Amino acid sequence: MKNQYFKGLKCTHCNKEYGPDADLLLCPECEHLLDPFYDYEALKRDWKKLDIKSRPNDIWRYKELMPVVDFDKIVTLGEGGVPILDCPEIAKELGVKEFYIMCDYMLPSGSLKDRTIAITATKAKEFGYDVLSCDSSGNKAASVATYAARAGIKSVVFVPDTTPAAKVAQSLFHNATLVKVKADLSTLSEMYRSVIRSKKYRWYDCGIDNPYRYEGKKTYAYEIIDRLNGRAPDYILQPASLGMSIVKAWKGFREARELGMYDGEFPKMVCCQSDKVGPIVSAINSGADHVTPSKRVPTVASALAVADPVLNGEETLKAVRESGGTGIHTDDETLLHYWKKLAGIGIFCEPSSAIGVASAYKMAKDGKLRESDVMVAIVTGSGFKDIGRVEENVSMPEKSVEDLNQLYAYIEETDVG
Amino acid sequence: MKNQYFKGLKCTHCNKEYGPDADLLLCPECEHLLDPFYDYEALKRDWKKLDIKSRPNDIWRYKELMPVVDFDKIVTLGEGGVPILDCPEIAKELGVKEFYIMCDYMLPSGSLKDRTIAITATKAKEFGYDVLSCDSSGNKAASVATYAARAGIKSVVFVPDTTPAAKVAQSLFHNATLVKVKADLSTLSEMYRSVIRSKKYRWYDCGIDNPYRYEGKKTYAYEIIDRLNGRAPDYILQPASLGMSIVKAWKGFREARELGMYDGEFPKMVCCQSDKVGPIVSAINSGADHVTPSKRVPTVASALAVADPVLNGEETLKAVRESGGTGIHTDDETLLHYWKKLAGIGIFCEPSSAIGVASAYKMAKDGKLRESDVMVAIVTGSGFKDIGRVEENVSMPEKSVEDLNQLYAYIEETDVG
Repeated sequence: MKNQYFKGLKCTHCNKEYGPDADLLLCPECEHLLDPFYDYEALKRDWKKLDIKSRPNDIWRYKELMPVVDFDKIVTLGEGGVPILDCPEIAKELGVKEFYIMCDYMLPSGSLKDRTIAITATKAKEFGYDVLSCDSSGNKAASVATYAARAGIKSVVFVPDTTPAAKVAQSLFHNATLVKVKADLSTLSEMYRSVIRSKKYRWYDCGIDNPYRYEGKKTYAYEIIDRLNGRAPDYILQPASLGMSIVKAWKGFREARELGMYDGEFPKMVCCQSDKVGPIVSAINSGADHVTPSKRVPTVASALAVADPVLNGEETLKAVRESGGTGIHTDDETLLHYWKKLAGIGIFCEPSSAIGVASAYKMAKDGKLRESDVMVAIVTGSGFKDIGRVEENVSMPEKSVEDLNQLYAYIEETDVG
Repeated sequence: MKNQYFKGLKCTHCNKEYGPDADLLLCPECEHLLDPFYDYEALKRDWKKLDIKSRPNDIWRYKELMPVVDFDKIVTLGEGGVPILDCPEIAKELGVKEFYIMCDYMLPSGSLKDRTIAITATKAKEFGYDVLSCDSSGNKAASVATYAARAGIKSVVFVPDTTPAAKVAQSLFHNATLVKVKADLSTLSEMYRSVIRSKKYRWYDCGIDNPYRYEGKKTYAYEIIDRLNGRAPDYILQPASLGMSIVKAWKGFREARELGMYDGEFPKMVCCQSDKVGPIVSAINSGADHVTPSKRVPTVASALAVADPVLNGEETLKAVRESGGTGIHTDDETLLHYWKKLAGIGIFCEPSSAIGVASAYKMAKDGKLRESDVMVAIVTGSGFKDIGRVEENVSMPEKSVEDLNQLYAYIEETDVG
């Protein structure tokens, strides 16, 4: 079945339009990002009769708002529809009305990437590619390997040689060709893009220039509105590497209001980065129009450590400002504190993923929140993704007990005895 | 809000009944398993107006069929409502009409246990306990630690000292008191039960005797029927340790038909175990009324290696036979083969979890399947749970590339170059 609502791509810079079948990365005219667009009049007319709620609870529930042409080519592992957990204890500590954690760490490959890679796997099928490719700090590589396997095609992924072993093993187990590169994430990205631009290989690029991929992130907006029974929250707290989660969630909230999924105020988008590698937040806070690359230094927030977000960074600046949002830097020590705090309430995520919650506490401390505020933090990657760091942060029992006497003795020494 | 439909516990052996507030493990009269029961007449009368489909997509969508008294005490991390993936390639290879994989590896703590531990965390809150406890091969421990954290109470878990490090670290990171025991799973279970029976500690036991816990597994039936748009499949393939997934899914399918969620034939329950430690399957195939404990030997299917399923084993025998089902043994080599096959189609699970799919291929080979069959295999634990074994089964790249020339040379050597 064809998607009659998806109409094509439009350049974010020169406004040139391309048809819905265009197999493009950046705009061929001006080398800026392309943005999918839809027949919103027809969508408004038809929205109610599409009966979204009767469909399976994944991103394809909103397939008419996805940039796919042929619904029969959809590649899916049931990504989306994750729990959005009410956390009244956190709301109380922050002094706000409601606080929710959106559990993207429960997606199929264990990270947020699946919302976007499901789209690229589908586009690869539409365009007839046999290989999916990407550069990655680890999560995107795992997602690309996973969805290529589901699609029945190959994958090739490029990761820094410092990538946690679990992410590497996961990609390899799904039969990816994996290339370890001795470089930081931004340098790796430059190398990878030069390979893609050489057009030597017929790979479907799931990297930062792909105009289709990020549309999957609009589902943040749709799912949050659905969970809040037709409301938008006051703040969305999002971990940012390139910032496209913010750009596309913002697009999603604008579309959703246009389509009548909620009314009232737009939410404010909060861009959350490490203070060590957080160039977008620096630009937001300094009032700059452009993002100046940051230094390339190690941080606990390894999944977010993009020193140069290139074109995407400016799109993010625009989205944050349009929404009336803000940017928050978090230092490594604070991040680790909130990572452990989340584990203490049953949330098993990687350190980078705690940055939204950490940022909310910073906003509360700075007096920026109101009693009536409703907030949603996206928690983006599973604790399993960096299990080495989990192991570093727990005390493994040194000895095993061998019989009942030893067992009772052990219990008596603990606080549950 | 109170659950007016949950009516109490009934002994599976002596039929003695207890009220819905009973804080019991085994039947105090005869030491057999207790089974929750409900006011089915009232449920039949009210089912449609409960409007199940308008609720969040988790196990609590069916809360009236759960053995909880006070809905306000529900402890949840959004468990349930997992993807049930259509796998036409597998269906074709098996020569059946439809084959689905139910992704319980995507539950919050990474395994099926969350369906049951969400119930015990809720009961602990109802009964006023401050500690959740269990014995475990690792997954249940992680789940108990996770849900205790969400409930704001403590946890104490007992695991064999051979438990994979990831499962141990996960439990500890959620602040569990973890006791490593130098013993196999059945010996550990005996030790743990003697601690519980000593009543020395006020712990809420999430172990094998708990009458509330397993009811969460009835949701297998409800979710499958919902995914198949009001149909029941012909076969449900379930990995079995004690077999309670089978017992309770079977109960769920009987209840669901009673309530009009589907009509037509009941599904047949297939009990899937390792040939090394597979005492329930041995009993099914030999026509025995009782389960004879198997030898205690290591197997790849470590999460299923219960040598003595005690009372639960007999309940499983009954359920399999009532449904017209069967039992299938799988050897380690075959299991690893299907585990890798699943990775090759995008499913990242632990080896034990591939046993349902392996069993389906055995049934096909033995000529037991028909062209019209619809089958669902439950895939129960995440690949992250035993990442060490994943790492053993992939070839890590030995070297990193350092520049573009090396990168191109590397690509040329691969099958994507």
